[in-house]
Order: sequence, then structure tokens, then C-alpha cells
Amino acid sequence: MQAEIITIGDEILIGQIIDTNSAFLGKQLNKIGVSVYQITSVQDNKSQILKALKEAESNADIIIITGGLGPTKDDITKHTLCEYFEDELIHNQKVLDNIEMLFSKYISTPISDINRHQALVPSKCKVLTNKYGTAPGMWFEKAEKVFVSLPGVPYEMKALVNDDVLPRLRETYKFPFILHKTLLTYGLGESAISNRIEVFEDNLPDFIKLAYLPNLGKVRLRLSAKNMDRTLVEQEMERQVQLLIPQIEDIFVGFEETESIETIIGKQFKERSQTLALAESFTGGKISEIITKHAGASQFYKGGINCYATESKIEILGVSEATISKFGVVSKEVAAEMAIAAKKLFKSDYAIATTGNAGPEKGDEKADVGEVCIAIATPKALIIETFNFGNHREKVIDKGVNKSFEMLLKEILKN
Amino acid sequence: MQAEIITIGDEILIGQIIDTNSAFLGKQLNKIGVSVYQITSVQDNKSQILKALKEAESNADIIIITGGLGPTKDDITKHTLCEYFEDELIHNQKVLDNIEMLFSKYISTPISDINRHQALVPSKCKVLTNKYGTAPGMWFEKAEKVFVSLPGVPYEMKALVNDDVLPRLRETYKFPFILHKTLLTYGLGESAISNRIEVFEDNLPDFIKLAYLPNLGKVRLRLSAKNMDRTLVEQEMERQVQLLIPQIEDIFVGFEETESIETIIGKQFKERSQTLALAESFTGGKISEIITKHAGASQFYKGGINCYATESKIEILGVSEATISKFGVVSKEVAAEMAIAAKKLFKSDYAIATTGNAGPEKGDEKADVGEVCIAIATPKALIIETFNFGNHREKVIDKGVNKSFEMLLKEILKN
Repeated sequence: MQAEIITIGDEILIGQIIDTNSAFLGKQLNKIGVSVYQITSVQDNKSQILKALKEAESNADIIIITGGLGPTKDDITKHTLCEYFEDELIHNQKVLDNIEMLFSKYISTPISDINRHQALVPSKCKVLTNKYGTAPGMWFEKAEKVFVSLPGVPYEMKALVNDDVLPRLRETYKFPFILHKTLLTYGLGESAISNRIEVFEDNLPDFIKLAYLPNLGKVRLRLSAKNMDRTLVEQEMERQVQLLIPQIEDIFVGFEETESIETIIGKQFKERSQTLALAESFTGGKISEIITKHAGASQFYKGGINCYATESKIEILGVSEATISKFGVVSKEVAAEMAIAAKKLFKSDYAIATTGNAGPEKGDEKADVGEVCIAIATPKALIIETFNFGNHREKVIDKGVNKSFEMLLKEILKN
Repeated sequence: MQAEIITIGDEILIGQIIDTNSAFLGKQLNKIGVSVYQITSVQDNKSQILKALKEAESNADIIIITGGLGPTKDDITKHTLCEYFEDELIHNQKVLDNIEMLFSKYISTPISDINRHQALVPSKCKVLTNKYGTAPGMWFEKAEKVFVSLPGVPYEMKALVNDDVLPRLRETYKFPFILHKTLLTYGLGESAISNRIEVFEDNLPDFIKLAYLPNLGKVRLRLSAKNMDRTLVEQEMERQVQLLIPQIEDIFVGFEETESIETIIGKQFKERSQTLALAESFTGGKISEIITKHAGASQFYKGGINCYATESKIEILGVSEATISKFGVVSKEVAAEMAIAAKKLFKSDYAIATTGNAGPEKGDEKADVGEVCIAIATPKALIIETFNFGNHREKVIDKGVNKSFEMLLKEILKN
């Protein structure tokens, strides 16, 4: 059972937006046992959409289309679907009721004819109600194949997929079982890992594949299994994981499907009833943002200081001016004082402090571009490391965030 | 002149990573006058890659391929390209020298045969040196068409594109002129805008298209023009923009190509020599992260407090316990005290404070899920607003960030 995803919109092709819908759809389809054969992004152009639909129909059993359903003139997906299915638009009262409800509840401008026209839908489709927006989802069936057209706005699309599309697909088909296990490692490059586990890799059964996903100091090892026999998949996956872990014990931090490194850290803190504080300079609040995007962060995260300006390091955190002028603002000494101060200020058990020069210019700092110091204060110790993360601002920041989490987790697990 | 982008990797199709490379490539190709006809993402599978290459060759003149060039067994792009071009792999000393240099400089593990094998490249390709990684870029020419294969690691790919691929394409072809102008608006829905500017839209010349890009409280209006005559494109675009702006004056904040809202804000601050501080609760550091991802933020951004826990609002910012127990932690009163405290603590001219319940649970807070308060302290005034941003955690946080920037810019422009 194969699916194809078609995302429609000039904004994707000109790079104005990043297509995040496809990744979400790929993940959700995989969970119910559907492989995605191909993702195709095309312009808001009738002949291109028709061509993509035709090719998708020949490749896949399930075709999911997003985008081009807005109320404005550049949105042509609905008309194009009518042409593809030799259909016509008819008024749907349920859709109009939903549009009117949304306007009365959440939208301050008056409802217009443009909005009311969104209640016109192809006569052959089944309407999927969009709880969060005015464009309905549409479900078509043609010669044993299913086509689903969804709005491009991510949170509207996601709700429709989870609440409506996936349950309907499960009712319509019987799917094989797909299982991914991704092992998160920090501290060793992909080819070094590959060398080390070569025998393991060569002896994997046919229905399990291994992939390496390297990214700025971390490498994810993904095992993917697919088979109609769920028990076989689960047992063999478990066996292979148990074979693999001892070979990478020193670099393995956890599984990604259930856990990112920040949720592994959060879980550790919650179990130990311990807390964390931050003092972020060159990472600018990104560590904090990643921690707080998960619900429940308030159980262990006390807060942080984004001390971007040197004076805020002095005035808010109380870093000594003498330390800064002697060692420079990017130094182990300053990182240490920042971590200790954050721990004290927030009365936390642990603290992370980051100071560095993310570039692109050397500026008036003593530190080279890419030079950073990260300090971890724990209940018992203070660990400080210096790195050079290169000359790419975004990369320096992201590597700093990854390295901070890696260093913190290592210290937590020691205690 | 059309391009097609092919991104290769199982991790894209199963949704483990979001394909950000395509958006970057789309944007850069557009800048030199190349339209992207289609983006196709396929698995690490020989027959699928071959099929995608064949289709791309029939659609487009320039085919850019990313991914599948790593040193490990799951990376098969290079072998597949050999098959497609009826070619064979040969040793390239320049590539090996680069790999050895990278290892000696940046990588602590010893170089292995797996890494050395990356110096095998198809004999018919021109090698593009990868300054940041071990996989080289490859440039093929076949019957007036260009195929470029690039590593999937974003920063390696980006450097190759900017330093090597785009200059070579410019030398090889003569391109038409493409110009996008995106007007950033805040505060009115897409259909209300569409109603208002209907006459303008109907009278646009053939070679200029208008698109609406709505996203959580902001709508971007993109005008796209393409023509061989650069002067015509530039003059007509300017004329249309001058026609459009007066019709949306109350909601227009700036142009996106050059400026996101945070860079517009940064520019205003720098011109006025004024400064900003933050006190972020439910936005968790995201406002700070967005400000600091731009170089030069230190010229106006003093820093911020991520006061996620209630006690940190009291202890670090000095919000009064009485205010919290009387009005609740999500209240206009608390937001006001936070903004005033941040402004004072960091000695800034302006401060933003955010407090809210992003959900998914009501918890022990008085506030409903989605309820938030945002306060802006200015040199002269204090503005506080309450919103309900719905029941989706990620959406509540992102709407909060957008609304904070919108409110701040409005106040700056008043002063």
C-alpha cells in the first residue's frame, strides 16, 4: 500500500515557505502502515496539478493533496479537482454553517461572498469538516484509489488528518505494520559509527533497513521494519536493538520516536525532582524555547536569563567586570560565573550557561568567530568546555544548543 | 528556463526530517531568474531515483539533486548517477586531499576507508569542492541540460550553491528577470483583504501574479513578476506596489524580501538608538531566539528573562505575590508588572512581557487554555492586551510571538 503526497502552492516552489506538511503526513501515514512513495510539490497551475494527479494515481493507492483551497483567486485546487474527476461544484450547507460559526466566534471582520463561496464543493466528494478554518477537506474515491484534498494551513491540515483522514483510511484498507526505531547518539561521526557496527549492519534481516542521519554533532541511527506480521516486526526489532546498543553504549543517549534529548532530560529531572535554570548568551533563548515547547516543562524548568549584552551579564547575573576584562566575555571563566549565578538566582539544582561569538564578524570581542564556552553547574560540580563551531552563525547557534543538551545529560546521568 | 529539484532520502518520505533544502534552492534559483517547475522527494531507491531523473530531464533544463551522498551503505545516489549517465566511478585526488584536510582539522576520529571512498566520483562529472564536508558536489552536462548533485546536509549544500552552482549557472545560461515583492500585513484576514483590493488584483498586468499567504495573524501579499526585460519588470512592479500600499496602509508593516518584522523592528531601534528587553513566560524564549538569530542584535537587544515558573516571576522580576494571587498569573496586571520590571532591570527603552496558558491542560492556573496577556512598555506608555489563541500549544506560542512583534512595532512607530 503506497501513498503519494502532492503539495500545491507557488510559495513552496519559490522557497517562500518550507513545506512542513509533507513531513507530518509522511510520519502519520507510516504510523498506520502506509509507505510514502513520493512527495511532489507543484505550482498553482492547472495543467501541472492535473499532471501530478495523473502520475500519482499511477504510482500510489492513496493520494494526499494539500494547499490551494483558500478563498482567494490564486487558489485553484478545487476547480482543478473538478476537472480531474469530471465533476462540478455544488453548494454544501454543512460547510456554510461551519464557515458562519467560525466567523461569528473567532473572526472580527464580517463574512463576505468570497468566504461563502468556500461552501461550494465538488459533488462527488465526501466533505471532511475543518474545525479550525473555512476550507473543508475533501475525500474522493476513484477505481479503488483514495484522493484526499486538504487545506495547506498546517494546524488545520493536521487536525483533519488525525481526526478524520487516518481513521477513514484504517476503515478502508488493511495495512502492513511499519516500525521505526531511531537511536540518538552524540559525540561520534557517521563513518566512525559505520565502521564500528559493520557486521551488525550486514546481518540485518531483509525487512529491516538501517539509515544514518548526521546533524551537527549528533547522529541518529534509524532502523525501519515493514511486514504484514506485526509480532515478527516487533520481536525482530527488539532483538536487533538489543544487539546494537552494547556496540554504541558510550555514545547512545536514547530513542527518538518517543524522546528527543530535551524530553529525556526532562524525564530525568522529573524523576529526581530536580530543577534547571539557564543563562544564555550566544544561543539567545533557543535552549529555553526548545525546553518550553513541551507541555509539563514547568515541573523542572525554573527559567533563564538571556544575557545577550555584556552589561546584562554584569548587571543581572553579577558576572564580575574584572573577569570579563581579564579573560574576555567568551571565556571559561565568564561561562562559569554565569552558570553559578543562574543556579543561585533561580535556586535550581542544575544550570547551563552559554557564551560565544556566533559571527559573522569578530567585532570587538577577543574571541574568534565560532568560539564558544559552555558551562554546566550541577549539585556537585562545574564543567566547562570550549569549542569552535565554525563560521556559520545558524550552525554555531544550533551546535551550541545540541552540545549544551549533550553535556547536561552526561552530567545528570553521572549523579 | 525551468529547474526541477529532486531531494533524496527515506528520512524525508517517512517524515523524520523536514526538507528545508528545497525552499533554499527555490529561493536562490529564483533570484537568478530560474523558475522551479517541480520539487520531487524520493526514497533511497535506485529505480525511484532513476525514474525521477528521467521525468525531471523531460520537464526541466536544470536538475538539482540533494542527498544520498554520505559515506554509509544507505547512500546510493552516486552509484545511481553512474548508471543514469552510463559512467563509472574513478578516484579523484583533489577530493581525497579535501577529505584528509577536513579530518586533520576538525574531526577527532581517525580517517577510515569509508571516508576515503568518498573520493570516488563519476568520471564524466566536474567536481565541486565541499568546504564543509567530505561529500563533493558533482556537475553533469547532458544534451544542453545540467544536472547538479549536492550533499543533503543543509549548510554544506548552501555553501556549494552560493559559491559554485549559481555562478556556474549564470555563466552557462541567459536567464529572464524574476522579481518578488512581498508585503507583510498584520491584523486582517485574507478574504477581507481580497475584497478590499479586488479591482487592483483584476488590473494587474499578465506578467505579475498576486498570491495571499495567511499565517496565524499575519497575511503576506506576494507580487511575482517574470520577464526578459528587467527594466519593465522593475518599473511595473514599483508602480503596482505604489498602487497597492495606499489601499492597505492600516495593516501594512513592511516588505519581506529584505525584512522580516523583527528586522524592521531592529532597524527602527538602531536608527533611534533605543533598546529592548524581554520577560517571556509562555513564549519561553522564542521571541529572544528570533531576535538573536540575526547578526547585530546586540546593538539594541539588552536581554530577557524567561520566567517560566511562577516563582521566577516573583523572585527575579519582583512581580508581587499579591497581584498573582488576586488576578492570577495570566492577567493584565501580572503582564504589566513583568514588562515594567524587565524594562527597569535591563535599563531598556522598551520591553515586551508575555504570560499565558499555552495548554494543553488548564492545570492549576485560573486562565483557560489559550488565554494570554501581552504587555508592551514604552518610554511613555504601557499597553496590555488579552487574547485567546485557541487550544493548540504550538499555535498559541507562535501566535503569541507574532502578536508581540506586531504590538511592539505599532508602538515604536507611534513614538
